[in-house]
Amino acid sequence: MENFDLYLPTHIIFGKDRVEELPELTKSYGKKVLLTYGGGSIKRIGLYDKIKELFKDCQIFEVSGIEPNPRITSVRQGVEIAKREKIDFILAVGGGSVLDASKNMACGAFYDGDPWDLVLDPSKVGKSLPIFAVLTLSATGSEYDNSGVITNTDTHEKMPIFGNMWPVASVLDPTYTFSVPQNQTAAGAADIMSHTYESYLVRKGNTLTDGFCESMLRTVIESAPRALKDPNDYEARAALMMASSFGCCGLLNIGREPSPWVVHGLEHELSAFYDITHGVGLAILTPAWMEYSLNEETAPRLANYGINVFGLERSADVMGTARKAIELTAKFFKDIGLPAKLSEIGIDDKHFADMADHVLKIWFGDFSKALRPLGREDIINIYRACL
Amino acid sequence: MENFDLYLPTHIIFGKDRVEELPELTKSYGKKVLLTYGGGSIKRIGLYDKIKELFKDCQIFEVSGIEPNPRITSVRQGVEIAKREKIDFILAVGGGSVLDASKNMACGAFYDGDPWDLVLDPSKVGKSLPIFAVLTLSATGSEYDNSGVITNTDTHEKMPIFGNMWPVASVLDPTYTFSVPQNQTAAGAADIMSHTYESYLVRKGNTLTDGFCESMLRTVIESAPRALKDPNDYEARAALMMASSFGCCGLLNIGREPSPWVVHGLEHELSAFYDITHGVGLAILTPAWMEYSLNEETAPRLANYGINVFGLERSADVMGTARKAIELTAKFFKDIGLPAKLSEIGIDDKHFADMADHVLKIWFGDFSKALRPLGREDIINIYRACL
Repeated sequence: MENFDLYLPTHIIFGKDRVEELPELTKSYGKKVLLTYGGGSIKRIGLYDKIKELFKDCQIFEVSGIEPNPRITSVRQGVEIAKREKIDFILAVGGGSVLDASKNMACGAFYDGDPWDLVLDPSKVGKSLPIFAVLTLSATGSEYDNSGVITNTDTHEKMPIFGNMWPVASVLDPTYTFSVPQNQTAAGAADIMSHTYESYLVRKGNTLTDGFCESMLRTVIESAPRALKDPNDYEARAALMMASSFGCCGLLNIGREPSPWVVHGLEHELSAFYDITHGVGLAILTPAWMEYSLNEETAPRLANYGINVFGLERSADVMGTARKAIELTAKFFKDIGLPAKLSEIGIDDKHFADMADHVLKIWFGDFSKALRPLGREDIINIYRACL
Repeated sequence: MENFDLYLPTHIIFGKDRVEELPELTKSYGKKVLLTYGGGSIKRIGLYDKIKELFKDCQIFEVSGIEPNPRITSVRQGVEIAKREKIDFILAVGGGSVLDASKNMACGAFYDGDPWDLVLDPSKVGKSLPIFAVLTLSATGSEYDNSGVITNTDTHEKMPIFGNMWPVASVLDPTYTFSVPQNQTAAGAADIMSHTYESYLVRKGNTLTDGFCESMLRTVIESAPRALKDPNDYEARAALMMASSFGCCGLLNIGREPSPWVVHGLEHELSAFYDITHGVGLAILTPAWMEYSLNEETAPRLANYGINVFGLERSADVMGTARKAIELTAKFFKDIGLPAKLSEIGIDDKHFADMADHVLKIWFGDFSKALRPLGREDIINIYRACL
């Protein structure tokens, strides 16, 4: 059993209409609010007006139009306002990208230089503005962790930021996800699953967290198709939202070796170069990575995955069971409407070598600690298998 | 899916020798420390001296001899010192009883009257002293929750206390449990399992937390016998310690109806009247309660428990599978050396009716919401089945 720290100070407030409790929770933090959001879906579902009404006693400044792969340019906008207006707290209303950008704004507000420095060098991250979150997409888990992912389109870099940036409270109202389009619902499901695989499919697990991971995967596999069939299925939307929060918070990894998060490493390169949807990249990469990682040593873990998540029969043919599990994974992503190949989304092999070099240079995780250890050629091979 | 709040602000610091990090964490809280502990085992394992050394720059006051079912008399002692000496924080070193008593001291320090008032009336609980914990027994989960259980021997009452009493940080070093005697190791295992059953065996679950509960149970069933066979088995002790923290923190219950915690209700009566070990009472009551709760409606849930936790085959005979699961539960408790009957620990039926009346009067949970709804006669029947 490895040593670990578990620290989850965010207050999760889960259920319909619970956003109404936010003003009471924020009132001791001040009255100057930086409201951050994305492309306007929060206006379509009436949440924007609701927030304005709830916080009518506050002075609200806004950063809108935060991109799906949130850019450092949006972060700079927020930091500028936060410094100029002496913002008291950030109210992030949206999915993971809005939360991630808000986290970089939160620490950027107390940093003298460019907020991109804080992405490049975590040691420069200090104090952060308090963040309150209202989640509108079940995917990244940013509502319950202390990290974010920021993209710099100038340098083709999509990189994580870490720091004391847990939201003080996150409101999770599944009804806000009723209007999430099919493709985003599916990509969000793939993201939750990928977070789980990053912890689960490593060389050594433990009974407690292997089981936690398997519950996460069963929940998504059961609920995503229901949410796609009936977007207003509260139970399915709620199950996805509940699961999303545990993907990145550390719970799935307690007592285990630190995971290198290799599939996320590979995907960040793809979306940094091509600005694709994160969950789509993950869904394409995941089965190829599993297949590439399958060998005599890793087969038992992949077979157990098939048995405990897809209900496969335990048999003497461990390799066969592992293969079947990988097939079912690919089939699941296809069934929920996600592309299976990079060629389907217009990506060819032009940048594979650059991406492999880059991820090995900048990624926080150690690729030699992956389920099957991966070097430069292995990474390129996995990208190629996705063509 | 039910609405829920999840709030787990305690920093869990898990691993060998990590107690050494405590002084750094506590230093901003002040230098007047109330050190609380139990019967002296922390002296035998050298932890007492270690703590004194680590906190040599602090002024340490002590409450020792805290009982296994911690008494309000010990709490009063601590409150008196905390008020008189203007204690800055409590350092609780021990198992659940030390932590529970410390929690009542922590809120008692800011209350003008008798701390037992705070047990009887949660609305009187206000501010609390910060608590830091060093765990020496894997059982109650008090290291990761905001509640405790206090006994008043004058009134034969053993009752929970709730409030803003999460430890700021809890150090979990599995090596501190190497010297825990066999009977306490087994009773602790039963306690962790019972906490899990209280969330798991209710009328309606959800995929995510059903799976979390099953992982908890598999972990204890796998690790407790190993820890009993070799008390210095780090992996087994670590697995139990890791699991213990999730039993009461709320994680196992998210999205589910509030559980009435009926077996704990019944057990608190037993140990209030007879001062028995909590986990022993739970192990005796649990199979009897399962058996009494088994009917056509509840059989599928108990059968699933058998399939997912004990690996029973799924079959058409749901009732038979459920029965087998209950038998295996009783057998597990017996195999780890716990008594199976109240008569084995000198308890007869003399107080059963009083206990049933009392628990129905004072218990926070609604017995009509149990797996099988329970009234006064049902409760007496379950006690009788344990004779």
